[in-house]
This record gives sequence, C-alpha cells and structure tokens, in this order.
Amino acid sequence: MGSNAIVGQSGGPTAVINASLAGVFSACREHGISRVYGMCNGVQGLLQERLIDLAQAFAAPEDIELLIRTPSSYLGSCRYKLPDAGKDEAVYERLFAILERYDIGYFFYIGGNDSMDTILKLSDYAQKKGSDIRFIGVPKTIDNDLAVTDHTPGYGSAAKYIAATLKELVRDSTIYDLRSVTIVEIMGRNAGWLTAAAALAEDEDCEGVAMICLPEVVFDPERFVREVERLQQHTPSLVIAVSEGIRVADGRYVCELSEDALHVDSFGHKYLGGTARYLCSLLGERINTKTRAVELSTLQRCAAHIASGTDIDEAFAAGSAAVGAALEGKTGMMVAFVRAPGEDYRCETALHDIHGIANAEKTVPLEWIDAEHYRMREPFMAYVRPLIDKELFPIFRHGVPRHLRRGQPV
Amino acid sequence: MGSNAIVGQSGGPTAVINASLAGVFSACREHGISRVYGMCNGVQGLLQERLIDLAQAFAAPEDIELLIRTPSSYLGSCRYKLPDAGKDEAVYERLFAILERYDIGYFFYIGGNDSMDTILKLSDYAQKKGSDIRFIGVPKTIDNDLAVTDHTPGYGSAAKYIAATLKELVRDSTIYDLRSVTIVEIMGRNAGWLTAAAALAEDEDCEGVAMICLPEVVFDPERFVREVERLQQHTPSLVIAVSEGIRVADGRYVCELSEDALHVDSFGHKYLGGTARYLCSLLGERINTKTRAVELSTLQRCAAHIASGTDIDEAFAAGSAAVGAALEGKTGMMVAFVRAPGEDYRCETALHDIHGIANAEKTVPLEWIDAEHYRMREPFMAYVRPLIDKELFPIFRHGVPRHLRRGQPV
Repeated sequence: MGSNAIVGQSGGPTAVINASLAGVFSACREHGISRVYGMCNGVQGLLQERLIDLAQAFAAPEDIELLIRTPSSYLGSCRYKLPDAGKDEAVYERLFAILERYDIGYFFYIGGNDSMDTILKLSDYAQKKGSDIRFIGVPKTIDNDLAVTDHTPGYGSAAKYIAATLKELVRDSTIYDLRSVTIVEIMGRNAGWLTAAAALAEDEDCEGVAMICLPEVVFDPERFVREVERLQQHTPSLVIAVSEGIRVADGRYVCELSEDALHVDSFGHKYLGGTARYLCSLLGERINTKTRAVELSTLQRCAAHIASGTDIDEAFAAGSAAVGAALEGKTGMMVAFVRAPGEDYRCETALHDIHGIANAEKTVPLEWIDAEHYRMREPFMAYVRPLIDKELFPIFRHGVPRHLRRGQPV
Repeated sequence: MGSNAIVGQSGGPTAVINASLAGVFSACREHGISRVYGMCNGVQGLLQERLIDLAQAFAAPEDIELLIRTPSSYLGSCRYKLPDAGKDEAVYERLFAILERYDIGYFFYIGGNDSMDTILKLSDYAQKKGSDIRFIGVPKTIDNDLAVTDHTPGYGSAAKYIAATLKELVRDSTIYDLRSVTIVEIMGRNAGWLTAAAALAEDEDCEGVAMICLPEVVFDPERFVREVERLQQHTPSLVIAVSEGIRVADGRYVCELSEDALHVDSFGHKYLGGTARYLCSLLGERINTKTRAVELSTLQRCAAHIASGTDIDEAFAAGSAAVGAALEGKTGMMVAFVRAPGEDYRCETALHDIHGIANAEKTVPLEWIDAEHYRMREPFMAYVRPLIDKELFPIFRHGVPRHLRRGQPV
C-alpha cells in the first residue's frame, strides 16, 4: 500500500482547524510516514494536484506553535461536493489516480458535515474498487452539530469568543441610564449551540444576557416583544442573543420577514442574515426604546486570539487519533469525542463509522432550554463550561498576534 | 477649599477608560485626598446625587487589577450636555451646591470632545463665581480625534483589536478559491484613525487588507468599483476596510445612498451604519463576486480582552497626571500626551488649556494617506505601531475574562 499521507481541510473555518492539521502532521512524523502532503483547497485542489509538502512548510522549529494559533484553514478550503459515484465515476477515477501517483496510503479530511460526506463517498468507492487507501475524517465545526460526538473541535473556541464578547457587550450596552436593547446575532442555522453559549457571559461579576433565542424553539415575535417590555420595567438596558436561524411558526426564518434577500450556497443551504436588524426594527416600531443590532458574523469563527486551550488540545488530539486509526487499518471512520462520566471533565477520542454521521444534524436538547424564560438550563451550562476552559495566548509581534504564513503548492 | 475629589466618565466606552479611573483613584489615595467619589452616569447622575464611595468600591486587594481590565465605563456614562451658563444658570447653581455639600475640591472628568466641553463650562463658571474647585479633563476616545494630544487613551486598544481582527478576517476570507470581497465597516465619523489601523494587519505573515477608505478623502464609488475589479485580477479574495463616515463628492455619507435610515443622537451627531452593506450591494450589482459585509460595531470599543498594554499604562498615567495637576492648583485643563522625538517611543503627559480643545476634531493628515492606492503611508504606521504594543492579558475564571462588578450608589 501507499506509504505517504495526505490531509485536507474543507468547509467553513474555525479557530482551531489548524490544530487538527498539526495533530495529523505531528502524528504522521512520529509514526515514520515518509511524506505528508497538504491539499490546497481540499478535494477541489487535489483534483488540480495543488499540493503542499508539509515537512517543508513546517520546517522551522516554531512553525507548529504558530500553526496551532493560526485561525482558518491553513491549506485553504472548498465547498466542493463529490457527485454520487454511480452517476459520475470519472471524478473518482481521476482522484484515485492522483492518490496513487503520490503513493498515498492515508487520507485525512478535516471538516464538518459536508466533509464527512466526502470521506463516506471516497471510502465506499475505495472498498468497491479494492483500493487499500484508508480514509479518516476529523471533525471540525463551530456549529457543534455533528452527530455521535460529544462536541466538535472549533465549538469551544467560538463559544469562548461569544462568552467573552457578550460579557463585554453587556458592559458596553448598560452604561447609559436609558432604555436600550442590543440584539446580538450569532451563527447557527438549525442548531443553537453557539447562541446558547451567550449564557456563559453571566457570572458573579456580570448580569449576563437578558434573553436567548435558539432555532430549536419556534420564535413568537409577539411574545418576544412582550418579554422585552416586561424586562425593561426593571432593567432598562438589555442585551439579547439570537440565532440567525430562528423561525416563526409557519417555518419562515425571522430574517425572511424583512426585505433582506436570502442567498443560497452550493450545498443548497440558505445563507442567513439580518435577523437582529429585523428584530430591532420590530422593537423600534412597538416599544419606546433605543435599539442596536450587532452581528458577530465571521468574527466568531476565526477569533484565534481568544481560543479555548481545551479546544486546541482536543483538536490536536483528534488529528493525532485519526493517524493512529489509519495506521491500525481503519477506514471510513470519523474521530469522535466521548466524555467520561463524573464531575471532572475528561474527554477521549473514539472512532465512528462514517455512515450515519454525514448529513445528520445534532441540535440542542429541548430539555436544556428554558424556552418560556428565554434562558439556558444548568445541564447545558455543565456541558459547555469545560469546553471553553484554559487559554493559549497568541504569540505577539509588535502588538499583533503572529500566524503561520500560508504555504505555496509544490 | 474642599478636601474631597469626584470623578466621572462620559461619552462612549473604551477598553481602557477604567484604567484612567484607576489612575485618578490611586493618585488621590497616594496624595492623601480623604474621600474620592464616583459619579454614576457622569454629570447627569451627579445632578441626581447618585455617587459611589470609591474606597469602598475598590476595597479588595485585586479590585484595581480587575478594574483596569474591565471595559466600558465602570461608573456608567451619559451624553448630557451642559447648557450655556448665560442661558440657564440654575443647573450650575445646583451642581455647585452638590459639590460643596460633598466638600469637593477636585473634579475629574474622563471623556471625549463633549466631556471636555463640560470641563470648559464648569471651570469657566467656577472662575466667574470665585469657586476654588479645580476641574481637570482626562481624554478618552477610541476615535483619537481630540486636538492638542498626540493620541487619546482608548485608541491604541481599539486599533489593536482592529489589527488582530482584520488579520483573522483576512485569513477567514481567503480560504476559498473564488472571487469574494469582504467589506469591514469601522467606526469613525469624520476621522479615519480607527479604519487606518486596519493597515496593521499587514505583516510578514499576512497580506493585509487590500484597500482602506477613510472619511478624510472624498469617496468615489466608480473608482472604488474599478479598483476592486483591478485587484481581483490578481487576488480573487479581498478584504477592504471602510470607515462608517466616508462621503461622496456632494457631501452625503455613503450609507445615506442606501435606504437605511440615519439616526441622530442628542448631540446632533448622525448615527451611521450600513456603509459596508451598501458597498456590498453596489459590488454585487456591478461585478461577479461574492460579497460579505462585516460591521465591527460596538465590539471595537469594548474589546478589553485584547487591550494594548501601552494604552492601559498611558490611560492610568493620564488619570494620575490629572490629580497631580489639580493638586498643583491647575484648573480648566486637559491632560495631553506629548511624544518625545526619536526612534524609540516615549510619551509624556502635559497639560493644555481646555479652551480650544473641546469641539475641535483632529483628522488623519492627508499626507499620511495614499488616497490613490487606498493605502496608509509609512508615517502613519510609525505613528500607530507603538500605540498597540504590549499586552495585559485578562484574568480568566472558567474560561471567561473577569471584570470588576459595577458598584452601587451610596
């Protein structure tokens, strides 16, 4: 079988996706895999043979330390979706020919739901054709919506950014002695994991956010307006966290109620935006209050400067575990996290068959949401707290965090 | 004369306005001023006698360490503008009666242009009435637009946040192999200091932002579109920094070209927003490119978690210098920064007569802007680099930065 490894990154960025890349690379080197290639822009770049020799790219002693602190995909990413092999075999033939040419025995793909679909299709095809290349998926998504894993690398850092930022916004928004509502729009199409993390702003030194609205719960604009009115009787300045994906009873996204257009990406996902702005204008019409919409936008997925130390460690471990699995002969698997029972947080890696993982979304359990009071319940807090814990501070130069410069194809 | 001191905060928040409060408080204690009061919500709260005894509020040993890491106004703020004493003397009589009742000899006000107007009016009134209370202003504004000072406390931290964030956004926005334009909207009504700080994202490990648009330069939408087209021929993914205050040749704000309404605050300032969204829709109509608008919004003024260590030190020093000046008998003055000549950065505090400071805006010198190429020139870089230097990391608890909890009125 092939003696080299190849690794790619796919889908949206996270603050720690490069820690998984570092984990894959380091474990490969440790296990004596002679050459580790990086795909530029995932499978799309692989099809164009745009590859990086990672031993060259990470040659300097400090490179790995910088890489794990560098947000977004070091290798570049893609949203390329493989066709069904039954319908279009040519692309598979081309891909496997390239993999053979580079003597690839191990294929690692770091990504979310759509990337696991790639691992599934490639490993199924390999099995069908009798290829011994091993395909292992490494989970990554700030959305935390992958099935069968306790959580996904990337979520903890985004949650930590949201907690710290919301705490600062609560400070910022409550300084004037007047009625104001700040609505913070947070990513999450169908799963409210990120928005729920706004609950972490509450602490003995911070009153926290006043309301949290998740896509798991039908959004009732009338009840929302009444609750804001009720809360403002005691607390004139409110900060409210809403998911971009909240929907009204008839299934429409709240942002669809406004005139802002929706975009659709190449996977058919609606690209949402304008939820907070719509709610601000709704409140402005109905209540005498100042309003401000804040969209965390892409900031929340690339804020490596306040990454979770736990998240970085686990992202690295996930990459490392993928290599271990491939060397044991596993293929068509995704690395997952299993949380040990008990008060003290411990998390171990495990392997899951890739079938049934791809395209299945995990949402916030309804019993963790106090929907009536727009709050998160304690089981969620116990779940999320360890994931944002610990810090790995940036390495600064002249006041700005250093990153590892993007490598060039060989 | 009165033996106590009083200190207030006014105007919009910064990440280091509380470091100046800590500087005032610490210097007062050092010089044996028996009691230091804090005004809740500035002069507005003073008129309602909502005061905090700061010795009680900062009683725990770690309180000052937390205070200097706490963003936004610890004491609360206001946008209250004093009437002309000639037109409405009653409010002055009431204010001075309150100051006498609390045996105030020293009055410190931390704020921006509008707050210096308060110091000017109160010190003028005191002189007219023969009051010996001393009024000293401590500058604060992320906008960096105060006259007669090399820079203002708050600017360095906001600039550092912008530099770090833009560098992360450049990473985030360039991972796909496709044409995209990310437009980042940054605060600054008439002065482009904050937007110019986006130039700091460029470094040996980052290509930086592709274009910078400041309010000091007339914005030409046609030239803008052409430049984006030209740049995309070589670089498909661009990140562009624009000031919220950019205007077209006829004087209208760019955001006024869209349908988004403008708000006006109580000082008559237009409250801007939607510039990046407007430019994205303009590009979307004219060029085949994906676009995304990111508004840094209030995040940029309260991001204490990545504050500049230099900024915190200087904000503290400014508060401390105000106390020194008052004890020397000065009144009607503002603390300013004077940069020593030479390569190595050194900055000292000085005092400036408050007349001629208030309501005068300092903008980015035109010779520091390469308007044709939408770039900042080296003199600006040399000016701004030391201001974002050094770090003072947050004190974390369970993964979230700690702040000092807001005090309650006595």
